[in-house]
Amino acid sequence: MSVFQATTSAPVNIACIKYWGKRDNTLILPTNSSLSITLSQDHLRSTTTARADPTFTETTLWLNGKVEDIKSGGRLERCLAQLKKMRRERIEAKDPNTPKLSEWNLHVASFNNFPTAAGLASSASGFAALTSSIAALYGLSSFDPSKPSVSSPSELSLVARLGSGSACRSLFGGFVAWEVGSSPTGEDSLAVQVAPQEHWPTMHALICVVNDAKKGTSSTSGMQRTVETSALLQHRIKNVVPARMQAIEKAIKDKDFDSFARITMADSNQFHAVALDTAPPIFYLNDVSRSIIAVVEELNRVSYEKTGHLVAAYTFDAGPNAVVYTESRNVKQIIEIIVRYFPQVESSPFPDPFNLFSGSQPAAAPLPEGFNENVAKVWEVGSVKGLIHTKIGDGPRILAESEALLASNGLPKVLV
Amino acid sequence: MSVFQATTSAPVNIACIKYWGKRDNTLILPTNSSLSITLSQDHLRSTTTARADPTFTETTLWLNGKVEDIKSGGRLERCLAQLKKMRRERIEAKDPNTPKLSEWNLHVASFNNFPTAAGLASSASGFAALTSSIAALYGLSSFDPSKPSVSSPSELSLVARLGSGSACRSLFGGFVAWEVGSSPTGEDSLAVQVAPQEHWPTMHALICVVNDAKKGTSSTSGMQRTVETSALLQHRIKNVVPARMQAIEKAIKDKDFDSFARITMADSNQFHAVALDTAPPIFYLNDVSRSIIAVVEELNRVSYEKTGHLVAAYTFDAGPNAVVYTESRNVKQIIEIIVRYFPQVESSPFPDPFNLFSGSQPAAAPLPEGFNENVAKVWEVGSVKGLIHTKIGDGPRILAESEALLASNGLPKVLV
Repeated sequence: MSVFQATTSAPVNIACIKYWGKRDNTLILPTNSSLSITLSQDHLRSTTTARADPTFTETTLWLNGKVEDIKSGGRLERCLAQLKKMRRERIEAKDPNTPKLSEWNLHVASFNNFPTAAGLASSASGFAALTSSIAALYGLSSFDPSKPSVSSPSELSLVARLGSGSACRSLFGGFVAWEVGSSPTGEDSLAVQVAPQEHWPTMHALICVVNDAKKGTSSTSGMQRTVETSALLQHRIKNVVPARMQAIEKAIKDKDFDSFARITMADSNQFHAVALDTAPPIFYLNDVSRSIIAVVEELNRVSYEKTGHLVAAYTFDAGPNAVVYTESRNVKQIIEIIVRYFPQVESSPFPDPFNLFSGSQPAAAPLPEGFNENVAKVWEVGSVKGLIHTKIGDGPRILAESEALLASNGLPKVLV
Repeated sequence: MSVFQATTSAPVNIACIKYWGKRDNTLILPTNSSLSITLSQDHLRSTTTARADPTFTETTLWLNGKVEDIKSGGRLERCLAQLKKMRRERIEAKDPNTPKLSEWNLHVASFNNFPTAAGLASSASGFAALTSSIAALYGLSSFDPSKPSVSSPSELSLVARLGSGSACRSLFGGFVAWEVGSSPTGEDSLAVQVAPQEHWPTMHALICVVNDAKKGTSSTSGMQRTVETSALLQHRIKNVVPARMQAIEKAIKDKDFDSFARITMADSNQFHAVALDTAPPIFYLNDVSRSIIAVVEELNRVSYEKTGHLVAAYTFDAGPNAVVYTESRNVKQIIEIIVRYFPQVESSPFPDPFNLFSGSQPAAAPLPEGFNENVAKVWEVGSVKGLIHTKIGDGPRILAESEALLASNGLPKVLV
């Protein structure tokens, strides 16, 4: 008997224009458009294998080798229901000989190659991988722009959005907008590609993983509280974000890093500003995050004075970790400055995927001329507990059978 | 020959609705109205002695015993010029026999009884004391509401405002509004008393002096940058502050602590939000400040659940220090909770002006039932390096000759 199984991987994305606030909590419809860069799956990815089989007695999801509870009426169930409906209507209804996968239970195994301790939200890549693996299993998508597909990545982004808002942006590579939409059903609140990764392949990202003792407010409950209590959020939604979306799309099309950086930093700061303008206030940045901001701002100031151009753009999601976007030629210098202020634990060697340091650990280099070294103190070792260097990347990939996470018996190869 | 000399003291004020942004940098005209509470001069004050003498060869100001440079065209000179004009027009022009003090040079000595290290802005009390001492010397004000005066405290607030915006609010005791005004000359941008201290005498304040390694952005340059770059400030100015001013004045008139506290905390947070929404962003709160906020919010949460009422309102100016407003009956408990999370240096005993602890140092008491102790960590000793307990107070006071800071020879009694 045939095995109906597909394995895909999906990328992490980090927003430059931030999503903060829902107008519909069930359909996960946002209060404003957002825009992100998809990071390379060569470094950070969620991988998912989905199998449908008439002998499975129930649908089961293993996340990192551990069974996850599929809540009735929950986000996961809504994603599955939507994918089954698409399979039924677009494939099975048109060809009575096609196996009725939509009626079979599923086994789904998902794995993130980055530890939770990295402080990166895994829900975006996770739900994008889940959506794309089942879409591949159901024959809904070829995941190859040169081949015809039953559904487009934007359509699949609608499904991923039901799982986790920002997951919709992980259905594309490159620069991706999530359009706010206006329909109460959410049909127009989908992701579109603003530019593919090939358009600006020198866009790199350095993730500074900040040590944080305290668990912050979850983004779901935090954004809800901001919508309910912030006196500034509505102004941001109506009057600030629409213009910024246009401006950053233009900056991306023009490969204008200065404008890109200014908008990205301003929008990160404004997101944290509306979080602070919430009752009770929400803080995601800590003193280490503030120091990273001070160092990047000073580096930009010095660079701007010398060359008229900026070199880096920080952005912070709902946590203290910084993501610094920069063009590839500047990454080495930025790493050297970061490790000067935030010395690294020797036991956690920098992986250096682009071989900037020829096998050695990055060392603090002299600061650029004119750089005011007192913008931040030198922090104790481990305040920034890791650096991840990656770059812009592509959308979900269909993986070979050999990469499947389910064994031939339909159970995960690795269980915890 | 007669000595023409007057000594006054003036209070510190701490805003509940924050002043942030000027529409005129020379006249110091604000972009929005603000409202503060005047703190008692029994604990925190600036004292100033002003003497006019035809033999003085120049006008000299000693601040804490050290000569200050009086910049030509600077803020201090503008205050002096305005007071001389009032003396000339209202006193000397009307009675040719009055000595022409306005034509004589001045010796002015000013002293703050709180150290700079307390992190309290001294410019408000300082310019209020300067203005009131010269006004008293010039016979412009009796500083006694029951006696007639040539000028009102609101008129003098216009003068103090030329020295430092928030100084205008220190010309009154109790609850004081600084009205934004609309005139380009600034004549209607003055302070008015919303309610005297006797209206709500149980209003106390606990100042938590936070250790801060780094000097933050000055408020003058910071607010200028916010005006130029924040996308949210104009919305705050036009759409948020006017309603808050009305609401907090009503809360004060009704002695409605819950509303007072909610508005005060929201406005402190919004001020720091627009500072963060500035390019480059401005941070005044640090991780210790955030922990104070978390502890006060938790205390309010527990209290609200039990009694339906709040007990404390934090507010932060352009620095990391918290001022916690509370009614007198709650101060002891709040101090005990603060010292639990922020243990005090034993060598800096709490002055305890209201004798809450009968001569002992405040000790950490058990937390109220239901209080989640994990809202903050217990900080290292000295993270909050001092606590100042004070209460609502009166406006400028005329002091006795014996309190003068100038000796009979016209020079400061204490020089540094």
